[in-house]
Amino acid sequence: MSGIKVFAPASVGNIGIGFDIMGAALERPGDEIIASKSDTPGVRITKITGAGGKLPYDAEQNTAGVAALRFLEHIGAEKQGIELEIHKKMPLGSGMGSSAASAAAAVYAVSEVLRTGMSKRELLPFAAAGERLVSGGIQLDNVAPSLLGGIMIARDNETFDVHRLHVPKGLFMAVVRPHLELLTREMRSRLSREVPLSSHIQQNANLAGFIIGLYNADIPLIGRSLNDVIIEPQRAAFIPGFYDVKSAALDAGALGCSISGTGPAIFALCPNSLVAENAGISMKKVFENLKIEADIYLSGINQEGAVIC
Amino acid sequence: MSGIKVFAPASVGNIGIGFDIMGAALERPGDEIIASKSDTPGVRITKITGAGGKLPYDAEQNTAGVAALRFLEHIGAEKQGIELEIHKKMPLGSGMGSSAASAAAAVYAVSEVLRTGMSKRELLPFAAAGERLVSGGIQLDNVAPSLLGGIMIARDNETFDVHRLHVPKGLFMAVVRPHLELLTREMRSRLSREVPLSSHIQQNANLAGFIIGLYNADIPLIGRSLNDVIIEPQRAAFIPGFYDVKSAALDAGALGCSISGTGPAIFALCPNSLVAENAGISMKKVFENLKIEADIYLSGINQEGAVIC
Repeated sequence: MSGIKVFAPASVGNIGIGFDIMGAALERPGDEIIASKSDTPGVRITKITGAGGKLPYDAEQNTAGVAALRFLEHIGAEKQGIELEIHKKMPLGSGMGSSAASAAAAVYAVSEVLRTGMSKRELLPFAAAGERLVSGGIQLDNVAPSLLGGIMIARDNETFDVHRLHVPKGLFMAVVRPHLELLTREMRSRLSREVPLSSHIQQNANLAGFIIGLYNADIPLIGRSLNDVIIEPQRAAFIPGFYDVKSAALDAGALGCSISGTGPAIFALCPNSLVAENAGISMKKVFENLKIEADIYLSGINQEGAVIC
Repeated sequence: MSGIKVFAPASVGNIGIGFDIMGAALERPGDEIIASKSDTPGVRITKITGAGGKLPYDAEQNTAGVAALRFLEHIGAEKQGIELEIHKKMPLGSGMGSSAASAAAAVYAVSEVLRTGMSKRELLPFAAAGERLVSGGIQLDNVAPSLLGGIMIARDNETFDVHRLHVPKGLFMAVVRPHLELLTREMRSRLSREVPLSSHIQQNANLAGFIIGLYNADIPLIGRSLNDVIIEPQRAAFIPGFYDVKSAALDAGALGCSISGTGPAIFALCPNSLVAENAGISMKKVFENLKIEADIYLSGINQEGAVIC
């Protein structure tokens, strides 16, 4: 039977100052998932490419599979047969929202192949259920932008109260992914459970400034505000050369630079694509000097999220 | 010699979720200050009304006097004689930005009487210097709205990086001021110096939601977001009946209700003036039942800040 192929993009979670609540969708890279109807009830993952054998075929153990399963249950179609092909086109465990992209692509593909007529916003809870398998809790800062596009704020995870921010034209991301392995859960457990009040105030002020900068297209304000005083200092030590990479990005003209999600990928938000290209090259060079292989991804802010392709 | 009379409004600092960084100017009440040139060098306070004898005439000990002095020094006019009349038309020590209003009015009146041609934004540092006398540090969450109007975010106090938010039409404040005395410095010293990470995330999300709600004129989102999980729980116990007052405001249709600045005044942000009127009456009744006298102030969001009157 003919399937529906969906692309869902990578995303930069946190964007430094919006820990657990803000994320930006990239135009590339991203994952592709093909959903097809089948006569055999249940969700079966029939093919996985690009994951280096690291992703399970058991649907209940796979983010895409879980997203599909929870969605079928929701619409009362547990008996429906669904086959999923998962084509990973981005690195796993890099802090670029790989699991969120697969979950978003899967649920959208299944919804479309079954012609439910549901909006992508209605599908968010099921994409989140898939992502939960990896992150251990409901976080929408990757899955919301991956599914819906743009720069998103998750005000409340329980009610899926997410909001898209205005994004000024031209903003561009350079994301550099060093070939280092960090595990999301371990990185989260290392964070201090307390924040100094003064840091809370400063971070709050910077998040506010960042959002105001986006709405007013005040590019310098976006840059001044992109300064994470809480999470980055705790995670930087786990990424060799982080502060040199950051300096390289800022020297190249980036508005700001911090860790993408839990890392090790590092993003630089740039005023245009030319700066992003220079920043990306400079950042990669720092890793090369440390004998660490690294990939560069250059991308505007994706405004569409998951799409049929 | 003829003087310049300036009105500067009261303000609601923090607005619950923007501790130390956000404040809203009210249309009323506010302070009036008359500045006149004099042949005697220096700043002299010649008259104070409405302060119940609580404000010093020594310029270096008075927020209005300090604001004027620091401003004269900045423009190299230390030898200039200035006389100030201070007419307090709002309660002192109430959490409604009384000292900020006097400082804002004073510096603007002095600048205008000397015809410096400086913008109000340029005067912010000197108004802040006056307010510092009371608050003990530079905080702009009252002085910025009092001088410039609107709902303001102070992203950075040192560089006076303040930003005005879009305010949807119709928003109205009911502020109820119980006749209780709380001291700003004492209230501040009682705050925990640490914030749980989970509360930081939630507060950040709510501040973001509040700002998005303002920009998008999404009134229900403003209401959902106006929920301070950090400061209010620590300060509520110092205001008898606080939670009953809050319930009364919300039951009357207020979008949110919390402590104005350090209190004891309590504000309710409302979708329109009718709801504000009802909320104000309901809030005052709670205090009356507790045998606590209380005043109601009903006001739209002031969009002008300090003005010549």
